[in-house]
Amino acid sequence: MTDESTAADGRHRVTELIRQARICMLTTIGVDGRMMSRPMGLQEAAFDGNLWFFAYADSAKVRQIRVNPEVNVAFSDQRHHAWVSISGTAHEGYDRARAEQLWNPLLKAWFPDGLETPGLTLIKVHATSAEYWDSPGGTVVTLFGFAKAAVTGRPPRTGENHEVNY
Amino acid sequence: MTDESTAADGRHRVTELIRQARICMLTTIGVDGRMMSRPMGLQEAAFDGNLWFFAYADSAKVRQIRVNPEVNVAFSDQRHHAWVSISGTAHEGYDRARAEQLWNPLLKAWFPDGLETPGLTLIKVHATSAEYWDSPGGTVVTLFGFAKAAVTGRPPRTGENHEVNY
Repeated sequence: MTDESTAADGRHRVTELIRQARICMLTTIGVDGRMMSRPMGLQEAAFDGNLWFFAYADSAKVRQIRVNPEVNVAFSDQRHHAWVSISGTAHEGYDRARAEQLWNPLLKAWFPDGLETPGLTLIKVHATSAEYWDSPGGTVVTLFGFAKAAVTGRPPRTGENHEVNY
Repeated sequence: MTDESTAADGRHRVTELIRQARICMLTTIGVDGRMMSRPMGLQEAAFDGNLWFFAYADSAKVRQIRVNPEVNVAFSDQRHHAWVSISGTAHEGYDRARAEQLWNPLLKAWFPDGLETPGLTLIKVHATSAEYWDSPGGTVVTLFGFAKAAVTGRPPRTGENHEVNY
Protein backbone atom coordinates (compact mmCIF):
# COMPACT_ATOMS: atom_id res chain seq x y z
CA MET A 1 0.00 0.00 0.00
CA THR A 2 1.45 3.39 -0.95
CA ASP A 3 1.55 6.35 1.41
CA GLU A 4 -1.08 8.00 -0.80
CA SER A 5 -3.57 5.18 -0.44
CA THR A 6 -2.81 4.88 3.29
CA ALA A 7 -3.65 8.55 3.72
CA ALA A 8 -6.85 8.09 1.72
CA ASP A 9 -7.81 5.11 3.87
CA GLY A 10 -7.17 7.15 7.00
CA ARG A 11 -9.38 9.99 5.81
CA HIS A 12 -12.07 7.50 4.84
CA ARG A 13 -11.97 5.97 8.33
CA VAL A 14 -12.20 9.41 9.96
CA THR A 15 -15.27 10.11 7.83
CA GLU A 16 -16.88 6.85 8.95
CA LEU A 17 -16.14 7.53 12.61
CA ILE A 18 -17.53 11.07 12.63
CA ARG A 19 -20.62 9.91 10.71
CA GLN A 20 -21.31 7.44 13.49
CA ALA A 21 -20.78 10.02 16.22
CA ARG A 22 -22.52 13.02 14.58
CA ILE A 23 -22.38 15.17 17.74
CA CYS A 24 -18.98 16.62 18.58
CA MET A 25 -17.42 18.94 21.12
CA LEU A 26 -16.07 22.12 19.50
CA THR A 27 -13.29 23.64 21.61
CA THR A 28 -12.36 27.30 21.29
CA ILE A 29 -10.23 29.75 23.24
CA GLY A 30 -12.10 32.47 25.08
CA VAL A 31 -11.00 36.08 25.14
CA ASP A 32 -9.88 35.48 28.76
CA GLY A 33 -7.67 32.56 27.65
CA ARG A 34 -9.98 29.84 28.99
CA MET A 35 -10.52 26.87 26.72
CA MET A 36 -14.21 26.13 26.24
CA SER A 37 -16.14 23.42 24.45
CA ARG A 38 -19.77 22.83 23.63
CA PRO A 39 -21.76 20.10 21.86
CA MET A 40 -22.42 20.76 18.19
CA GLY A 41 -24.17 18.80 15.45
CA LEU A 42 -22.08 18.24 12.36
CA GLN A 43 -23.89 19.34 9.21
CA GLU A 44 -21.85 17.58 6.58
CA ALA A 45 -20.87 13.95 6.81
CA ALA A 46 -18.79 13.80 3.62
CA PHE A 47 -15.56 14.85 5.18
CA ASP A 48 -13.12 16.38 2.69
CA GLY A 49 -11.08 18.20 5.29
CA ASN A 50 -13.73 20.83 6.06
CA LEU A 51 -16.39 20.57 8.75
CA TRP A 52 -19.48 22.77 8.62
CA PHE A 53 -21.74 24.02 11.40
CA PHE A 54 -24.68 26.41 11.53
CA ALA A 55 -24.47 29.06 14.24
CA TYR A 56 -25.64 32.50 15.27
CA ALA A 57 -23.22 35.26 14.32
CA ASP A 58 -23.53 36.83 17.79
CA SER A 59 -22.77 33.61 19.71
CA ALA A 60 -19.77 33.34 22.03
CA LYS A 61 -18.06 30.72 19.88
CA VAL A 62 -18.25 32.89 16.78
CA ARG A 63 -16.81 35.87 18.67
CA GLN A 64 -14.04 33.60 19.98
CA ILE A 65 -12.97 32.21 16.61
CA ARG A 66 -12.82 35.73 15.18
CA VAL A 67 -10.11 36.47 17.76
CA ASN A 68 -8.43 33.04 17.76
CA PRO A 69 -9.34 30.68 14.90
CA GLU A 70 -7.49 27.64 16.30
CA VAL A 71 -10.02 25.00 17.34
CA ASN A 72 -10.38 21.32 18.13
CA VAL A 73 -13.32 19.19 17.11
CA ALA A 74 -13.63 16.02 19.18
CA PHE A 75 -15.93 13.09 18.51
CA SER A 76 -16.52 10.53 21.28
CA ASP A 77 -18.43 7.43 20.29
CA GLN A 78 -18.24 5.14 23.30
CA ARG A 79 -20.78 2.78 21.76
CA HIS A 80 -18.37 2.04 18.91
CA HIS A 81 -15.25 2.62 21.03
CA ALA A 82 -14.07 5.33 18.69
CA TRP A 83 -12.60 8.75 19.34
CA VAL A 84 -11.54 11.37 16.82
CA SER A 85 -9.58 14.56 17.42
CA ILE A 86 -9.52 17.09 14.60
CA SER A 87 -7.18 20.07 14.83
CA GLY A 88 -8.10 22.95 12.60
CA THR A 89 -8.76 26.59 11.98
CA ALA A 90 -12.29 27.96 12.06
CA HIS A 91 -13.75 30.70 9.91
CA GLU A 92 -17.17 32.21 10.15
CA GLY A 93 -18.95 33.47 7.09
CA TYR A 94 -22.37 33.18 5.52
CA ASP A 95 -22.35 31.60 2.09
CA ARG A 96 -25.90 31.34 0.79
CA ALA A 97 -25.17 28.61 -1.75
CA ARG A 98 -23.35 26.51 0.82
CA ALA A 99 -26.08 27.09 3.42
CA GLU A 100 -28.72 25.86 0.94
CA GLN A 101 -26.66 22.79 0.25
CA LEU A 102 -26.20 22.01 3.97
CA TRP A 103 -29.70 22.96 5.11
CA ASN A 104 -32.18 20.36 6.30
CA PRO A 105 -35.70 20.98 7.64
CA LEU A 106 -34.87 19.74 11.17
CA LEU A 107 -32.70 22.84 11.62
CA LYS A 108 -35.87 24.95 11.73
CA ALA A 109 -36.13 24.10 15.42
CA TRP A 110 -33.07 26.27 16.09
CA PHE A 111 -33.27 28.68 13.20
CA PRO A 112 -37.02 29.24 12.92
CA ASP A 113 -36.94 31.38 9.78
CA GLY A 114 -34.78 28.90 7.95
CA LEU A 115 -32.18 30.41 5.70
CA GLU A 116 -33.75 33.83 6.35
CA THR A 117 -33.13 33.63 10.12
CA PRO A 118 -31.53 36.89 11.26
CA GLY A 119 -27.96 36.30 12.41
CA LEU A 120 -27.67 32.88 10.80
CA THR A 121 -24.12 32.09 9.80
CA LEU A 122 -21.82 29.18 9.02
CA ILE A 123 -18.67 28.04 10.74
CA LYS A 124 -16.18 26.21 8.55
CA VAL A 125 -13.42 24.30 10.32
CA HIS A 126 -10.54 23.48 8.02
CA ALA A 127 -8.77 20.41 9.41
CA THR A 128 -5.00 20.53 9.55
CA SER A 129 -4.71 17.09 11.15
CA ALA A 130 -6.83 14.39 12.70
CA GLU A 131 -6.13 11.57 15.07
CA TYR A 132 -8.41 8.66 15.76
CA TRP A 133 -8.58 5.74 18.13
CA ASP A 134 -10.56 2.65 17.44
CA SER A 135 -10.68 -1.00 18.29
CA PRO A 136 -11.83 -3.03 15.34
CA GLY A 137 -12.15 -6.31 17.28
CA GLY A 138 -14.72 -7.27 19.87
CA THR A 139 -15.20 -8.72 23.36
CA VAL A 140 -12.99 -8.00 26.33
CA VAL A 141 -9.79 -7.58 24.38
CA THR A 142 -11.30 -4.72 22.46
CA LEU A 143 -12.58 -3.04 25.56
CA PHE A 144 -9.22 -3.47 27.10
CA GLY A 145 -7.69 -1.99 23.99
CA PHE A 146 -9.96 1.00 23.89
CA ALA A 147 -9.48 1.60 27.58
CA LYS A 148 -5.71 1.55 27.10
CA ALA A 149 -5.94 4.23 24.45
CA ALA A 150 -8.33 6.09 26.69
CA VAL A 151 -6.12 6.20 29.72
CA THR A 152 -2.73 6.87 28.24
CA GLY A 153 -3.34 8.14 24.73
CA ARG A 154 -0.93 5.41 23.62
CA PRO A 155 -2.03 2.96 20.96
CA PRO A 156 -3.24 -0.28 22.53
CA ARG A 157 -2.07 -3.52 20.99
CA THR A 158 -5.59 -4.54 20.07
CA GLY A 159 -6.80 -1.10 19.02
CA GLU A 160 -5.25 1.50 16.81
CA ASN A 161 -4.29 5.15 16.96
CA HIS A 162 -3.56 6.89 13.70
CA GLU A 163 -2.68 10.39 12.70
CA VAL A 164 -3.97 11.73 9.39
CA ASN A 165 -2.73 14.89 7.77
CA TYR A 166 -4.80 17.04 5.42
CA MET B 1 -32.76 28.35 46.97
CA THR B 2 -29.71 30.53 47.68
CA ASP B 3 -26.92 31.12 45.19
CA GLU B 4 -24.67 29.01 47.42
CA SER B 5 -26.92 25.99 47.31
CA THR B 6 -27.52 26.48 43.59
CA ALA B 7 -23.76 26.37 43.01
CA ALA B 8 -23.48 23.24 45.16
CA ASP B 9 -26.30 21.61 43.19
CA GLY B 10 -24.52 22.51 39.95
CA ARG B 11 -21.27 20.96 41.10
CA HIS B 12 -23.12 17.87 42.27
CA ARG B 13 -24.75 17.51 38.86
CA VAL B 14 -21.40 17.90 37.08
CA THR B 15 -20.01 15.14 39.30
CA GLU B 16 -22.91 12.86 38.38
CA LEU B 17 -22.54 13.54 34.69
CA ILE B 18 -18.80 12.91 34.55
CA ARG B 19 -19.21 9.74 36.64
CA GLN B 20 -21.59 8.42 34.01
CA ALA B 21 -19.26 9.34 31.15
CA ARG B 22 -15.90 8.34 32.70
CA ILE B 23 -13.95 8.75 29.45
CA CYS B 24 -13.26 12.32 28.42
CA MET B 25 -11.40 14.23 25.73
CA LEU B 26 -8.51 16.27 27.15
CA THR B 27 -7.68 19.21 24.89
CA THR B 28 -4.27 20.87 25.01
CA ILE B 29 -2.40 23.37 22.86
CA GLY B 30 0.59 22.01 20.97
CA VAL B 31 3.89 23.82 20.71
CA ASP B 32 2.95 24.62 17.08
CA GLY B 33 -0.32 26.23 18.23
CA ARG B 34 -2.56 23.38 17.11
CA MET B 35 -5.26 22.33 19.53
CA MET B 36 -5.21 18.60 20.17
CA SER B 37 -7.41 16.25 22.16
CA ARG B 38 -7.20 12.61 23.14
CA PRO B 39 -9.40 10.18 25.08
CA MET B 40 -8.49 9.83 28.76
CA GLY B 41 -9.96 7.87 31.64
CA LEU B 42 -10.84 9.93 34.67
CA GLN B 43 -9.28 8.55 37.86
CA GLU B 44 -11.36 10.31 40.48
CA ALA B 45 -15.11 10.49 40.35
CA ALA B 46 -15.58 12.64 43.46
CA PHE B 47 -15.26 15.96 41.73
CA ASP B 48 -14.18 18.73 44.07
CA GLY B 49 -12.87 21.00 41.33
CA ASN B 50 -9.79 18.91 40.55
CA LEU B 51 -9.60 16.14 37.96
CA TRP B 52 -6.79 13.57 38.12
CA PHE B 53 -5.21 11.49 35.37
CA PHE B 54 -2.27 9.10 35.27
CA ALA B 55 0.18 9.72 32.43
CA TYR B 56 3.75 9.23 31.31
CA ALA B 57 5.99 12.21 32.03
CA ASP B 58 7.47 12.06 28.49
CA SER B 59 4.10 12.06 26.70
CA ALA B 60 3.14 14.82 24.29
CA LYS B 61 0.29 16.06 26.48
CA VAL B 62 2.57 16.47 29.50
CA ARG B 63 5.10 18.40 27.42
CA GLN B 64 2.27 20.57 26.10
CA ILE B 65 0.82 21.49 29.49
CA ARG B 66 4.28 22.43 30.75
CA VAL B 67 4.36 25.11 28.03
CA ASN B 68 0.66 26.04 28.13
CA PRO B 69 -1.37 24.80 31.11
CA GLU B 70 -4.77 25.92 29.79
CA VAL B 71 -6.87 22.87 28.95
CA ASN B 72 -10.42 21.74 28.35
CA VAL B 73 -11.86 18.46 29.57
CA ALA B 74 -14.97 17.43 27.65
CA PHE B 75 -17.35 14.61 28.53
CA SER B 76 -19.83 13.39 25.91
CA ASP B 77 -22.43 10.94 27.09
CA GLN B 78 -24.81 10.52 24.20
CA ARG B 79 -26.55 7.63 25.93
CA HIS B 80 -27.66 9.96 28.72
CA HIS B 81 -27.82 13.03 26.46
CA ALA B 82 -25.32 14.84 28.63
CA TRP B 83 -22.29 16.94 27.79
CA VAL B 84 -19.87 18.64 30.14
CA SER B 85 -17.15 21.17 29.33
CA ILE B 86 -14.61 21.87 32.03
CA SER B 87 -12.17 24.76 31.57
CA GLY B 88 -9.09 24.54 33.72
CA THR B 89 -5.38 24.68 34.20
CA ALA B 90 -3.31 21.51 34.18
CA HIS B 91 -0.27 20.74 36.27
CA GLU B 92 1.91 17.67 36.10
CA GLY B 93 3.64 16.32 39.15
CA TYR B 94 4.09 13.01 40.87
CA ASP B 95 2.65 12.88 44.36
CA ARG B 96 3.17 9.43 45.82
CA ALA B 97 0.43 9.70 48.44
CA ARG B 98 -2.09 10.94 45.90
CA ALA B 99 -1.04 8.24 43.41
CA GLU B 100 -1.62 5.54 46.02
CA GLN B 101 -5.02 6.99 46.76
CA LEU B 102 -6.01 7.08 43.06
CA TRP B 103 -4.41 3.81 42.00
CA ASN B 104 -6.48 0.80 41.03
CA PRO B 105 -5.21 -2.58 39.81
CA LEU B 106 -6.71 -2.18 36.32
CA LEU B 107 -4.14 0.55 35.65
CA LYS B 108 -1.43 -2.13 35.55
CA ALA B 109 -2.36 -2.73 31.93
CA TRP B 110 -0.86 0.65 31.05
CA PHE B 111 1.63 1.09 33.83
CA PRO B 112 2.97 -2.46 34.22
CA ASP B 113 5.15 -1.78 37.25
CA GLY B 114 2.32 -0.09 39.12
CA LEU B 115 3.36 2.87 41.18
CA GLU B 116 7.01 2.01 40.46
CA THR B 117 6.55 2.38 36.69
CA PRO B 118 9.38 4.55 35.35
CA GLY B 119 8.06 7.87 34.08
CA LEU B 120 4.70 7.55 35.82
CA THR B 121 3.23 10.89 36.72
CA LEU B 122 -0.06 12.58 37.54
CA ILE B 123 -1.89 15.34 35.74
CA LYS B 124 -4.12 17.49 37.91
CA VAL B 125 -6.61 19.72 36.14
CA HIS B 126 -7.92 22.48 38.35
CA ALA B 127 -11.31 23.52 37.02
CA THR B 128 -11.97 27.22 36.74
CA SER B 129 -15.45 26.73 35.30
CA ALA B 130 -17.71 24.04 33.94
CA GLU B 131 -20.70 24.04 31.67
CA TYR B 132 -23.11 21.20 31.21
CA TRP B 133 -26.00 20.33 28.99
CA ASP B 134 -28.59 17.79 29.90
CA SER B 135 -32.15 16.92 29.22
CA PRO B 136 -33.80 15.59 32.33
CA GLY B 137 -37.01 14.47 30.58
CA GLY B 138 -37.46 11.59 28.20
CA THR B 139 -38.96 10.60 24.85
CA VAL B 140 -38.88 12.69 21.73
CA VAL B 141 -39.02 16.04 23.46
CA THR B 142 -35.81 15.30 25.27
CA LEU B 143 -34.06 14.17 22.14
CA PHE B 144 -35.26 17.30 20.47
CA GLY B 145 -33.97 19.27 23.43
CA PHE B 146 -30.57 17.68 23.45
CA ALA B 147 -30.23 18.09 19.73
CA LYS B 148 -31.05 21.77 20.05
CA ALA B 149 -28.25 22.30 22.55
CA ALA B 150 -26.02 20.22 20.33
CA VAL B 151 -26.52 22.25 17.20
CA THR B 152 -26.48 25.78 18.49
CA GLY B 153 -24.96 25.64 21.95
CA ARG B 154 -28.07 27.46 23.14
CA PRO B 155 -30.14 25.96 25.92
CA PRO B 156 -33.12 24.04 24.57
CA ARG B 157 -36.46 24.63 26.23
CA THR B 158 -36.70 21.01 27.38
CA GLY B 159 -33.04 20.63 28.27
CA GLU B 160 -30.76 22.80 30.29
CA ASN B 161 -27.39 24.49 29.96
CA HIS B 162 -25.75 25.69 33.14
CA GLU B 163 -22.47 27.30 33.96
CA VAL B 164 -20.78 26.46 37.24
CA ASN B 165 -17.88 28.39 38.69
CA TYR B 166 -15.28 26.89 41.01
